[in-house]
Parts: sequence; structure tokens; C-alpha cells
Amino acid sequence: MRLSQYFIPTLKETPAEAQIASHRLMLRAGMVNQETSGIYTWLPLGLLVLEKIQKIVCEEQDRIGCHKVLMPTIQPAELWKKSGRYEAYGKEMLRITDRHDREMLYGPTNEEVITDVVAQYVKSYRALPLVLYQIQWKFRDEIRPRFGVMRGREFLMKDGYSFDLSSEAATETYKKIYESYLRTFRRMGLTAIPVRADTGAIGGNLSHEFQIVAPTGESTIYYDGHFESLSAEDMTFDVASKLYAAADEMHKVEECPLPVEQLKTARGIEIGHIFYFGTKYSEPLGAKVTTPDGQTIPLEMGSYGIGVSRLVGAIIEASHDDKGIIWPESVAPFKVGLINLKVGDAKVDALAEGLYNHLSTKDIEVLYDDRDERAGTKFADMDLIGLPWQIVLGNRTLDTGMVELKNRKTGEKVEIALEQVADKI
Amino acid sequence: MRLSQYFIPTLKETPAEAQIASHRLMLRAGMVNQETSGIYTWLPLGLLVLEKIQKIVCEEQDRIGCHKVLMPTIQPAELWKKSGRYEAYGKEMLRITDRHDREMLYGPTNEEVITDVVAQYVKSYRALPLVLYQIQWKFRDEIRPRFGVMRGREFLMKDGYSFDLSSEAATETYKKIYESYLRTFRRMGLTAIPVRADTGAIGGNLSHEFQIVAPTGESTIYYDGHFESLSAEDMTFDVASKLYAAADEMHKVEECPLPVEQLKTARGIEIGHIFYFGTKYSEPLGAKVTTPDGQTIPLEMGSYGIGVSRLVGAIIEASHDDKGIIWPESVAPFKVGLINLKVGDAKVDALAEGLYNHLSTKDIEVLYDDRDERAGTKFADMDLIGLPWQIVLGNRTLDTGMVELKNRKTGEKVEIALEQVADKI
Repeated sequence: MRLSQYFIPTLKETPAEAQIASHRLMLRAGMVNQETSGIYTWLPLGLLVLEKIQKIVCEEQDRIGCHKVLMPTIQPAELWKKSGRYEAYGKEMLRITDRHDREMLYGPTNEEVITDVVAQYVKSYRALPLVLYQIQWKFRDEIRPRFGVMRGREFLMKDGYSFDLSSEAATETYKKIYESYLRTFRRMGLTAIPVRADTGAIGGNLSHEFQIVAPTGESTIYYDGHFESLSAEDMTFDVASKLYAAADEMHKVEECPLPVEQLKTARGIEIGHIFYFGTKYSEPLGAKVTTPDGQTIPLEMGSYGIGVSRLVGAIIEASHDDKGIIWPESVAPFKVGLINLKVGDAKVDALAEGLYNHLSTKDIEVLYDDRDERAGTKFADMDLIGLPWQIVLGNRTLDTGMVELKNRKTGEKVEIALEQVADKI
Repeated sequence: MRLSQYFIPTLKETPAEAQIASHRLMLRAGMVNQETSGIYTWLPLGLLVLEKIQKIVCEEQDRIGCHKVLMPTIQPAELWKKSGRYEAYGKEMLRITDRHDREMLYGPTNEEVITDVVAQYVKSYRALPLVLYQIQWKFRDEIRPRFGVMRGREFLMKDGYSFDLSSEAATETYKKIYESYLRTFRRMGLTAIPVRADTGAIGGNLSHEFQIVAPTGESTIYYDGHFESLSAEDMTFDVASKLYAAADEMHKVEECPLPVEQLKTARGIEIGHIFYFGTKYSEPLGAKVTTPDGQTIPLEMGSYGIGVSRLVGAIIEASHDDKGIIWPESVAPFKVGLINLKVGDAKVDALAEGLYNHLSTKDIEVLYDDRDERAGTKFADMDLIGLPWQIVLGNRTLDTGMVELKNRKTGEKVEIALEQVADKI
């Protein structure tokens, strides 16, 4: 992509309303535009990251045999009356009346809709286990939206729902998804700590939040220091669930089994939340199947959320410096920023164009800064945007055929022959 | 994908509420589930098609240099009051009041939001031309939703918006997108006829609808018979705009220049609609730029829609028979249906598994019917689902090593050695 023809409206000033780094950097890097409190337009650069995150989430869901569906954002109130949540949900639910005066709502979560779908079509144990998921916009009318996309009103979430014949089978599904979540977050460069959590508005008897440690986290988490020495591969459900880790509302000092030197306390950002709640929705909504011995029983269910739009902010909270964002390669909007410091010099222009085309044909995503701007502006913008690699072409390229290759994360710079830089990356 | 583990809830009976083929077939093939009038959940098979259509649309938008963004579904009413459309839009606009009693709405189209974004960030002619597009859910509270996803209330649309310095430049952009639309639809196996159209609620002075001919179309179109003999490649803006073609409300018998034998009349399904409307939104919303000679002028704008969810129905209307859907390869949910008629026979199971894995490693998308069902059910379901190719393994495969390869569209069947079938496809 040529920056001169692209649409990345970066800001020089720090917006006054942004209290935390991710919000500030997303506005400054031209990733989002606020439409009104807690509601954002995703501009091209932000959307690229959002889509990369979605792709990773989908791949990991598909890998464990979940099936993707898509539910509507606007739903009839009837199903929510059946489950009892229409009244219970309170003011966070955006309630709507259509032109025929029917009560509707903007789904804040979708246990009711998906349970009703399964109730209609799944009649036999032979269709189980079944996990259906979607990535769809949700709306929760937060009283005080803040922190940019971290606590917005309209937000993108992966929500999945599992259907099993028995609580044993449901627990196996829960474990499988728990481990899949750890893998999903690892692919984005995040180490998530699964903490025992309250089941809240969803209900049920088993629940974990996936938290990443960050000073700007909204909640306090308590966890065994051993989490920090566990390698990613070792953090299976069986291992992790033996270690103490609790969300604020679940942590009781007097009940905590850990010696004080082993107990870590930190601020956490919740990026996922999973629930096992048995028949709480399948009973009232009539999602029942016949068993191998001919009985008819309600399905055992769980639900599983990943905050997709929130993750964009969370990743930035976990990975930035005073110059800007530092994207992990897996979610970076482009892999490489190509900076031409001599725009207008026919020779350097030709070399830069050639390299741009060469990288593009190798399927390396490149943002080519071909603008006629000062070097300082170009360096600052590229550091702000935070692509993993920067390639700089300038006077030295003319003299020696060398380019500068910079690693955004380490700051390390090497001189390398122009024709070797593609292989190096 | 193994059908035994998948979620395609096909129906044997034709649903009573479905009046047209696409609605009937989408329900019978387990592609969608109606939640309430005009609002659907997309089940796995339907979603795969919807995603393939989105991918083609995005590729063609990106190819001509449009940039993808994503606007929120819920928007503040203020912008719509500035443009004058908040009152004018009528009951089709879903109006919402949030917990703080602010007036909001579910975007039925997005000229206001995108113009406001551009007004904030684009100040100079140097950023032009600029085309921003998104694929996002819209809501129009139709008084009488019907025909399944063809006229739903919540629907998925590609909406794009162009910003230019002069009406000449805007017209060039309009032509470029016009031609891109023809290419987009061609990739889905559709021949669209661009007809002169009324500008309706969007406003403006130049507008075309892209219509496909189908007996179940909702409107009547009038066009020069020469359209039917034009090859896809020849149908450029300059050629097509010289031929007479008009939507119902634009056609006047006394003004039609065509001799009666050359005038064709047909029912059409609208799958795209483009508008050039000058400064209708940029004026009230203050989207202005400085020109090369230092003036400040409002941007010349157009908007460009493709009915993404409607296309799923439109493609089926254009391509089905009495047995079911016939997917064009480019949008088929899977390329091949693999039917094992001897499930439980160890040898055939092994051959089928081997072929399934072989096709999968070649990145050929396969739906493997590994269910223990009667042959008649399997053939009927596969014809209903409408994948381009069917491979059948049965007794003859055991005896001779041959499989049957069927082309869903032509019905042609050939016997072919199992190890050659992947190459054949």
C-alpha cells in the first residue's frame, strides 16, 4: 500500500479524552474515529488489525471443530422473556421498538438465540457434541464508556456455545476450549492467565476469565507466581487449574491456599471469559435431545467469549513504547514499512518502487511511505504505527546500494544490501 | 468437513411461508433460520456462501484502490439532523433511545457518518481521489419483509463512498466503480444489466441500478436487446451507457428511443445501486478541501451499494433446478461433495477417507457425507445443497476402483479411477 494514496489520518497531538496508552495510540495512529460515546468507526489501519485478530480466532475455533454461524444483531424480545433475562438484564440492554410496536433488542450476548436454533434442529444425541460460534457486533449500553475500544458500547466479540449430552462431556468441551483460548492468545503474542471467575449475568457453576497483566487493567487479579514460569505449551487445563488464580470478586484472603510470597497481585485486562452453566437456558427454551436409551433430556451448555475489538486495545497495552505501537507480527496491519527519504530522486524512487513490488510479489505486506515529507515526520509516523520492520532508503542507498533495516521492537538497525532485504525479512 | 459432525439442518418439507425458490431452498438446505420477520441467523452453509461473496466484493474494491473501513451500526441522530434526513427517512429507519435518552439510530445507509469522518481528516486536494467502503449490517424496518434474505430488515451490504475535487473527477470515479461492479457480479456467475435509475432517498443527479433478470424479480426493467449479445468484456461504461436501459420508474414509453422489436422487458432483481450526488452531503456536513489554487470547496461525492446478503438469494434465483441449488464455483460453500454409499464397509471407508484427505491437502474444499443414511437421502441432500461436483464411492469402487464424478450443473456423470479424480477437478 502506498501511503500517499492511503487513508491513515495520524494525529500529532495527544487527544485530551484518552486516558490510557492504547486509546491514545489508536487515535494518534489513525486507527479509529469516535462517533459518539463508546461507538467507533474503524479506519483502514485499525480494521486490518481487527481482521487479523478475527482470522486467528476463527482458525483456532475451526481447529477444534467449532462451526461458524452468524446471528442477527437485532432480536425479538420473546426469547429473552422465556429465559427470564429480558427484565433481569437492566439498562445495559439496548431496547428497541420496531414500527409495529414489537419489542426488540440489540443482542448483548446470544445464549437465547442460539439455544432456540439448536432446540429447533437438534433432536438426537448423535448430533453431539456441537459447538457453534460467531464473530458479531454486540451492544451494551455502558453507563460510562471509556478507554476507547476497551470498554465501548458497540463492540466485536467472538461468542461460542457448546451443547453436550452430559456434564462430563460438557466439562471435556470446556477444557478443550480453555486450552484453545490459551493458544489463540499466544498467537497474538499474549500470555493469558486463566482465573476463576464469577458467573455474573450468564449464570452457571464454572467460569474462567482470561486476563493479561497490564498496569491499566480494570480489575485486580490474584495468582500463583508459578504461572510466570510455565511455558506456553505446558499451560494445559489440568496444570493451570491446579494453580491458584482468582478474579477480584472470587479472591478471599482467608481462603487463599498460597503462601504470601507466592501470591502475585496485578492489574488485569479481561480478554476472554468462559462459562459452564448446565441446563440454565436449554430447560426454559426447550433444547432437548433423545439419549441412546430413549430418554429426552435438556442439553448441557457452556458459552465462550473473546473480546475481539477489545483485543486490539489490549495488545497495544501489552506492547508499546513512548514512540508508539509495537505490533506482534501475527496481528500487524503490515509486516514492513518502507521509507523512501529521497522522494523525487528518480534513482531512489526506482529502487524503492522495485523493492515495493518485489516484497509485494512475495506476499509480504508493505506500507510504502512515498509521501514528500520530512525524514523526521516519516520516522515518527512509522514508529507510531508500529509495523514490525522498517526499511529505509536514502542517500546511502544511492552511494552503496545498502538499505537500513530496523526492528521496531528491539530498535536494532542493520545495514543490508537492498537485494538481500526481502530474504532477511 | 465431515457431514456427520457438521451442522446442516436440511428440511424435507417445503416451508409454507416461502414464496420464491431462493427462500425455499435456503431454508430447505439449512442455510438460514428466521428469528423474526425479516431477520435471520446464518447457519454454517449459508455463512460460507455469504463469506465467499464478501471476499469477491472486497477483492474487486481493493483492486480499484478503494479502502476498507467499518462504521458502527448504531449512530447518533445529530449527523442525520444536519443532513436533513433524520425526519425525511420515515419509518424505515430504526430509531433508538439510549439509557441517557439520546436519540440514536441503526444505520440504513451511511453517507452522514462517512462524510463526517472525511470532513475531520481530509483537508487538501492532495488526498483525493478517495473511496472508502465497508461491508456492514444495515437495518431498514420494511413494513412487509418478504422473500427471505432478498428483502430482509437486517441485511448485509457493501456501501462505498467517493470523494473527488471536481464533477469531472467524480464522474471518472463513478465510471470506474460502474465497471468494477460488472466485473464483481461476473465473478459470481451473474450478468448484471446497469439501468438508469431514480436517485430516491440518497438524492443526486446520476444513478444506475445493477439488475439481473429473473422471473421472481420485484421490479420491471426495460432494456436494449443488444445487452444480451454483449460479451462481458465488452460491457464498459462507454458502451453500456449508450444502450437504453431503464428501471420501471424511469421508463417512459413515449421517450424510449428503441424500436419496439429491440426493447426487452423483464423482471429484475436489484443487486447493486450507484449514485453520483455532488455536494448534497459535503455541504451540510462541512467536508471541504483546499484546491491547488487555494480555494476551499465542498467535495464531490458518490455512493455505491452492493446487496451482499441479497446476492445469496439472487444467485440461487439465477441458478437452481427442481432438485435444489446449483452454485457457481466461485461462491460454492464447498467445491466437492464426497458421497460414501457404503459407510461401515472398512474398505470403502478407507478409500473415502483417503480421498477426503487427499483433496483437503490439495486445498479443494470437500463436504464428506459420511453419515449412515440411505443412498436416496444422500443424493437428494447433495443435489439440494448444490455443490458443483459430486464424487460417489460405492460397490463399483470396491469392484473396479472407479468412482462416479457428477457435474451438478450439467448432470453429466463419468466413471473415473479414484486416483485420477482430484486432478480431474
